[in-house]
Amino acid sequence: MKPNARDKLLDTALSTIRKKGYSATSVDDLCARAGVTKGAFFHHFKSKDALAVAAADHWSQSTGALFASAPYHDRADPLARILAYLDFRIELVAGEIEEFTCLVGTMVQEAYGASDEIRDACRRSIFGHAATLEADIGEAIEKYGVSGITPESLALYTQASIQGAFILAKAKNDPDVAVDMIGHLRRYVELLFKPKGEEARKK
Amino acid sequence: MKPNARDKLLDTALSTIRKKGYSATSVDDLCARAGVTKGAFFHHFKSKDALAVAAADHWSQSTGALFASAPYHDRADPLARILAYLDFRIELVAGEIEEFTCLVGTMVQEAYGASDEIRDACRRSIFGHAATLEADIGEAIEKYGVSGITPESLALYTQASIQGAFILAKAKNDPDVAVDMIGHLRRYVELLFKPKGEEARKK
Repeated sequence: MKPNARDKLLDTALSTIRKKGYSATSVDDLCARAGVTKGAFFHHFKSKDALAVAAADHWSQSTGALFASAPYHDRADPLARILAYLDFRIELVAGEIEEFTCLVGTMVQEAYGASDEIRDACRRSIFGHAATLEADIGEAIEKYGVSGITPESLALYTQASIQGAFILAKAKNDPDVAVDMIGHLRRYVELLFKPKGEEARKK
Repeated sequence: MKPNARDKLLDTALSTIRKKGYSATSVDDLCARAGVTKGAFFHHFKSKDALAVAAADHWSQSTGALFASAPYHDRADPLARILAYLDFRIELVAGEIEEFTCLVGTMVQEAYGASDEIRDACRRSIFGHAATLEADIGEAIEKYGVSGITPESLALYTQASIQGAFILAKAKNDPDVAVDMIGHLRRYVELLFKPKGEEARKK
């Protein structure tokens, strides 16, 4: 199926905003890169902000599908699933900075104060993805008898660490620093569930 | 001493960019908010990018002075100093989002690809602050016999976690989520140095 103008604009928004940031990406820029007219843009989106909200939702859907079909869900042990998720996040850190960093983390950083709609679309995306980890974390907490943390809070922390890892990678222009940072997050999860999770880590 | 136009512009840049992001902050905007003329702006800075680099350096200096004089350095034990640093970071999360979030984390997020000079000024600021933690971390690693991590890497991870905590606070429009995230970072440090650091955490 040939992508329509709306899909082209959304895909272009994903790559362009991750490269240039939201404010620096103009409607003209998006139209030129997507190869669509400005008339087509405003047929599909009433404003640049409306495009941003749609792009955040499009991001949630496309990354959601990627994570839903990823192999980390196949592990029998819940802690092994969480660690395999983090290994998958490490695998995804490859190529150019704009190819592995996060659309919504970038947008919310600059646009949180300018648009409640954009901020909230970014919140839905980040917090929604975090929520997909809660069941495994909850199961691991119960299985390994960990106290003092909630599944929601630890799930959010995985996202905070990964978002911060991307910032350091951008600052250093070096993906390896993001890999190293996510390695600390992995170590934290291991330590949290230690020593009872000892055997799970080998599965 | 009355602040001159340059100082006014730098201070205005710190607050405005943290609120609106870098690209959305125009030279006109900065001049109006700082109460200086555009002529004065270009007398002091040859471009908006040059202002950004100077603002990042100004940020490094002002936050550097704050951290250098903070009480966490007074603890006798190196692990206690690291934990007190993290408690200090938690204390700083207060007020409006733009008052506690990070200028250089915000700027590098959007401008990393547009300007090597801005990216590098942000790197100097984030990595430079991280470096101030390395001596305490190195001392704690030695004292408590921890293996598998380097002072540089753990110091950077503290900054990655804190930067990510700010992103989540922006997305949720809620400082409390940042406090909760830095709490996980604190727990990671405790677990890393446990059990030998048990007594230090009570000091």
